Amino acid sequence: MTQEIITSAQNPRLQEARALLNQVKARRKLRAFAAEGARLVEDGLRSGARVRSLLVRAAHPPRVQTILSHIPEGTVVHLVDDKLFDSLADTVNSQGIIGIFDLPEWPLPGDLNFALILDQMRDPGNLGTILRSAEAAGAQAVFLTPGTTDAFAPKVVRSGMGAHFRLPIFALEWEALKAAVAGLNVFLADMAGEQSCWQADFSAPCALLIGGEAEGASPEARELVTRSVHIPMAGASESLNAAVSAAVLLFEVLRQRSAGGTA
Amino acid sequence: MTQEIITSAQNPRLQEARALLNQVKARRKLRAFAAEGARLVEDGLRSGARVRSLLVRAAHPPRVQTILSHIPEGTVVHLVDDKLFDSLADTVNSQGIIGIFDLPEWPLPGDLNFALILDQMRDPGNLGTILRSAEAAGAQAVFLTPGTTDAFAPKVVRSGMGAHFRLPIFALEWEALKAAVAGLNVFLADMAGEQSCWQADFSAPCALLIGGEAEGASPEARELVTRSVHIPMAGASESLNAAVSAAVLLFEVLRQRSAGGTA
Repeated sequence: MTQEIITSAQNPRLQEARALLNQVKARRKLRAFAAEGARLVEDGLRSGARVRSLLVRAAHPPRVQTILSHIPEGTVVHLVDDKLFDSLADTVNSQGIIGIFDLPEWPLPGDLNFALILDQMRDPGNLGTILRSAEAAGAQAVFLTPGTTDAFAPKVVRSGMGAHFRLPIFALEWEALKAAVAGLNVFLADMAGEQSCWQADFSAPCALLIGGEAEGASPEARELVTRSVHIPMAGASESLNAAVSAAVLLFEVLRQRSAGGTA
Repeated sequence: MTQEIITSAQNPRLQEARALLNQVKARRKLRAFAAEGARLVEDGLRSGARVRSLLVRAAHPPRVQTILSHIPEGTVVHLVDDKLFDSLADTVNSQGIIGIFDLPEWPLPGDLNFALILDQMRDPGNLGTILRSAEAAGAQAVFLTPGTTDAFAPKVVRSGMGAHFRLPIFALEWEALKAAVAGLNVFLADMAGEQSCWQADFSAPCALLIGGEAEGASPEARELVTRSVHIPMAGASESLNAAVSAAVLLFEVLRQRSAGGTA
């Protein structure tokens, strides 16, 4: 464990962390992202993600101390002056610790059976919540289309609650995406969809396609679609929150595929 | 349509609106709440909620002008200086219009068949999203226990997307809540719940009970419970976002009760 106290805002480690928190460009160039908070850092370390360094607030709670006493030998820890650390991240969310992790590199699952495609999703909180649901429902991969918010932005990572370390996430161009989902039934979530999600047959290998909150799915995304499905509603409302739609459909796929699926 | 341009921060109408936006006490005392944005105001007017007044930014988009040309005769409209208006609400969310509405007063549904109980829910965005889902899934009433965020706080109202005007919401003390749900099966959402939500029988009159993100359901809430149910998960994650859990269960109740419910 290397120790070093950072007291200058110009410190290159601090500037790098700031760039990773604020700029998608920096995350892509450095192939790294920042995970804020004790829980996320613990999750990352436990999942076997490669940690490049930890930034730790000089004054930090006991939970962070516990993490530091269990990190792999050789992990670089930078102690950061309290005020400087607080200028980087808000203390409540970060709890005094930020982990800089390698961006995960996943191979495309060969036997793809259950995937999620997110198109034009702009709200970071919704995106993170959907990633968390997708992992819980057993999706093997999530594909982000061009125009979707970066999955490794801090707010997405926070809402993802560790899904980023365990769920293969791919940001792809249209041609690559088309190739990746070839052979899958692609079900578009659409309030005007032809079939109810309870009548749709999710038993064959499939992908769910969820469009953005504002404009729905793009024309390019619609080209991938096998069928459109709607979630039946009983009230007067016209739509659901995108994270809610995604969750209802993800767990409906899991329900249909579970032995005890029917009530 | 009464017109009056407000240019002073001390104007009592403006101070009242500020209080309704910021203080639960003011909402309870005045029996009113503020709904920000063209869509919500339109929703409120359409649903027949009683509007006390509209606060309109002096410079406002055409959509707001359209609303103003369709409001009921006698509606009080206060034009507010741009800077003053912007100090009240952020322009992006409010789009230059805020409606002050009566707090809805609902009778308790006599033939209660499908209700939702929210306990210790603190996150306003989650609470609003749950109200939106509850209305869409056909819940007849939502009960908020002591310790749950006020449902008429601006962020809850925004995330509710109009559910506040159509869905009976009751903030009750424990004794009144107990009486209100007497005769219903109360299903607690709990990751360690005894029964899968797909095996649970939601055909009889029931209420779902969702606990807060942090500590789950309180001991008082647990006293109401008939059964605990879990949402089966396939991934390594230990929990779901509270709004996601609520949605999966709400739509499972609707699925089981729908003729075409089984796939």
